[in-house]
Amino acid sequence: MVDVGAKPKTERVAVATGLLRMLPATRERILAGKVEKGDVLAAARLAGIMAAKRTPDFIPLCHPIALSGVEVTLEPVKEGLSVRVTVRTVDRTGVEMEALTSACAAALTVYDMCKSVDRGMVLEAVQLEHKSGGRSGTWERESKKDGAKAPSSPRKRAKG
Amino acid sequence: MVDVGAKPKTERVAVATGLLRMLPATRERILAGKVEKGDVLAAARLAGIMAAKRTPDFIPLCHPIALSGVEVTLEPVKEGLSVRVTVRTVDRTGVEMEALTSACAAALTVYDMCKSVDRGMVLEAVQLEHKSGGRSGTWERESKKDGAKAPSSPRKRAKG
Amino acid sequence: MVDVGAKPKTERVAVATGLLRMLPATRERILAGKVEKGDVLAAARLAGIMAAKRTPDFIPLCHPIALSGVEVTLEPVKEGLSVRVTVRTVDRTGVEMEALTSACAAALTVYDMCKSVDRGMVLEAVQLEHKSGGRSGTWERESKKDGAKAPSSPRKRAKG
Amino acid sequence: MVDVGAKPKTERVAVATGLLRMLPATRERILAGKVEKGDVLAAARLAGIMAAKRTPDFIPLCHPIALSGVEVTLEPVKEGLSVRVTVRTVDRTGVEMEALTSACAAALTVYDMCKSVDRGMVLEAVQLEHKSGGRSGTWERESKKDGAKAPSSPRKRAKG
Amino acid sequence: MVDVGAKPKTERVAVATGLLRMLPATRERILAGKVEKGDVLAAARLAGIMAAKRTPDFIPLCHPIALSGVEVTLEPVKEGLSVRVTVRTVDRTGVEMEALTSACAAALTVYDMCKSVDRGMVLEAVQLEHKSGGRSGTWERESKKDGAKAPSSPRKRAKG
Amino acid sequence: MVDVGAKPKTERVAVATGLLRMLPATRERILAGKVEKGDVLAAARLAGIMAAKRTPDFIPLCHPIALSGVEVTLEPVKEGLSVRVTVRTVDRTGVEMEALTSACAAALTVYDMCKSVDRGMVLEAVQLEHKSGGRSGTWERESKKDGAKAPSSPRKRAKG
Repeated sequence: MVDVGAKPKTERVAVATGLLRMLPATRERILAGKVEKGDVLAAARLAGIMAAKRTPDFIPLCHPIALSGVEVTLEPVKEGLSVRVTVRTVDRTGVEMEALTSACAAALTVYDMCKSVDRGMVLEAVQLEHKSGGRSGTWERESKKDGAKAPSSPRKRAKG
Repeated sequence: MVDVGAKPKTERVAVATGLLRMLPATRERILAGKVEKGDVLAAARLAGIMAAKRTPDFIPLCHPIALSGVEVTLEPVKEGLSVRVTVRTVDRTGVEMEALTSACAAALTVYDMCKSVDRGMVLEAVQLEHKSGGRSGTWERESKKDGAKAPSSPRKRAKG
Repeated sequence: MVDVGAKPKTERVAVATGLLRMLPATRERILAGKVEKGDVLAAARLAGIMAAKRTPDFIPLCHPIALSGVEVTLEPVKEGLSVRVTVRTVDRTGVEMEALTSACAAALTVYDMCKSVDRGMVLEAVQLEHKSGGRSGTWERESKKDGAKAPSSPRKRAKG
Repeated sequence: MVDVGAKPKTERVAVATGLLRMLPATRERILAGKVEKGDVLAAARLAGIMAAKRTPDFIPLCHPIALSGVEVTLEPVKEGLSVRVTVRTVDRTGVEMEALTSACAAALTVYDMCKSVDRGMVLEAVQLEHKSGGRSGTWERESKKDGAKAPSSPRKRAKG
Repeated sequence: MVDVGAKPKTERVAVATGLLRMLPATRERILAGKVEKGDVLAAARLAGIMAAKRTPDFIPLCHPIALSGVEVTLEPVKEGLSVRVTVRTVDRTGVEMEALTSACAAALTVYDMCKSVDRGMVLEAVQLEHKSGGRSGTWERESKKDGAKAPSSPRKRAKG
Repeated sequence: MVDVGAKPKTERVAVATGLLRMLPATRERILAGKVEKGDVLAAARLAGIMAAKRTPDFIPLCHPIALSGVEVTLEPVKEGLSVRVTVRTVDRTGVEMEALTSACAAALTVYDMCKSVDRGMVLEAVQLEHKSGGRSGTWERESKKDGAKAPSSPRKRAKG
């Protein structure tokens, strides 16, 4: 785990997204609050928040970070549910891994609660959309709309 | 967390896969063992195994399960690295969530170790390929080759 | 941690309850879904379930147990919110501690989400109501309605 | 998890208390060091300290905080054992939840170690007594002596 | 993590020991209960028990196991304190790692509580003494008295 | 857990070492990469890093600390494998326990992966070599080469 002790503490933000593809009927059932196991969207949001906090337990080389904020939103899209996570800290290293881990946990929680009716759901396009703060500055994914199909490594827009 | 106490303990297997898209140069660097942070594939395999064990901490409604085996393999494909996880147990409930969570952790560990050179990597097609055991029997994804583009819910092939 | 290896695995149930006293306005705000931090009841239920699973991390001498089911309900009462947790397992030792820990976590999650408007809330009467299974048999609290004021150790009704 | 990144780091303290009601014989056995499972008070203190550190794992929306100190005391009272926890930090958010969670863990550890002789013990009056530091200033519970019977939300004494 | 699903559940025991060398004055202070941070032996025993339960989080390829019993004893010897841990389970795989991890945690807890007065303490001879149960049968360390100096791999005495 | 809130945050380093004695054949097998369970040295390094992060869960009175760096190296010596861990932070308390815990986890991971061929391995001489930063200044072990045999408490060399 590389030493970040010499880096200054700065405000850092990372945004990650993901898409859980599902049958239209599954999406409708979730939105109608008719899933037997409970409120899927509330559970997914909480799972995402808790996973962000536990990221250093999951990703071996991740530094433990005092997160200052985590926001998880899920919204219906044509193919299923889109997840978006924003993580903030004031620390010596970034929170990209926390945002990505949180997005996975939120989406997999939806999968878990609905798998008895739609085991074929697919988690796609888990990706960083934005990060700012720190020595490497700001990074933005170029074309947000079609992440999964885009070339995987858009040029970095220098903003930092 | 639904009561599974009345279910018998049976042998259960789940297989999940995922694809981490990356720049060709990133894949080459990983395969050549030239990533500064260490052996990426070894770290990803361990992260996947450890994540499988900790799934009930991550997925709120997941039962704690005594896993009997976890196997994580990563192999190079044209678009980057493909992850495949097989989880086994002899218990009252299935291990689909363990396999999916493990696949995410393995792939995100690769992301973490290489993000300084390729922040645009995308995790795609995290999906169940197979599960067997338990009351609901065997389930197979129909077309394994093109998971991400396939309709999300293939018909279940009755095998159980 | 006392050795329970010689005990047979039997079905075991424990029920615990607790009462979170609060201002009437706080209760109304929760029930109306107007707490800024999100759906309080959904969060408390999940927190209770997750805490049940993690009890051996919290209570030093608690055995790790494969819980087969956890049910957390919260309902409004005159003084605030009443929490009730039922935990089930098929194992060598009981789940009283899981039920009590879960009840505390669910109630404290409500406290956390509402503390900015009602810091004076009090968690009362966290107590076992029922346990069954195992060598010591069934135990029932005698007067459920007025737990907090009742003598702390009702006679055990032999049922086991 | 609300963003606290813009708040300054200030010294913060929270004090929580709770009462574990028990049979007089149980209290005597604990104080005499005659509980088979070991030194109950030492175990409860440690459990309280460890629980304070793990609060963000238990309470979903709690920020991870670098605690600077935790003190757990248990003392015999007429009705059983009284628990008092003081938690300190220098951070962007308060430690009320850490103090309350710690008080529950300490009391439940006593319950766990003595439950074979007194299953009817009741945890009462888990409540915040004091908190200071941060934007919302100091808060004191008005009547400390009779917490469990007091109206749940005493007026705040402005001190901050 | 190798698959153990086909192995039968059998009773298994592992015993591990370790020696924490320290200044005589440190040992006396511990035994006299004069260490400021609290009861060192009680804390070490609890830490050992809790660590045994968490071994699969610490040792990457360790299976999660439902421990049925853990016993940690510390006793004064000429060189300092000797730790001995016995772990039991009825499961498909052994508990050697749980016993060894527990011995380390117990000894390091002593170190932690006394390090301000004796930073030079050394943890020695952490080793398996005995294991039984399972396909590989019983194993005993040959010369228990002088573990640290003995050749590291005594012949296995066939007993299983 | 003693209050460290009044201490300033300073850069702190701790170095701990340990020696895992093993049969020569075991050491050769590890170095040749012929252990069935995978790359032993890579696994041990990761286990050491992850354990450092989780030290406050293992050592009851350890403060939670935001580690800024962890480095784990294993190298072959005549008797087996030598482990060396360096932990860094910028915080109010030291990281000696993190370094010692990490050294144990790394060594025990080697044990775990090779125990089927050499159950008699012994972990020796787990000890602090150096710590710097904080009020108590710098401490160095006097004779590094023969730690296990040296008197346990060398005089402190004032450097801080």
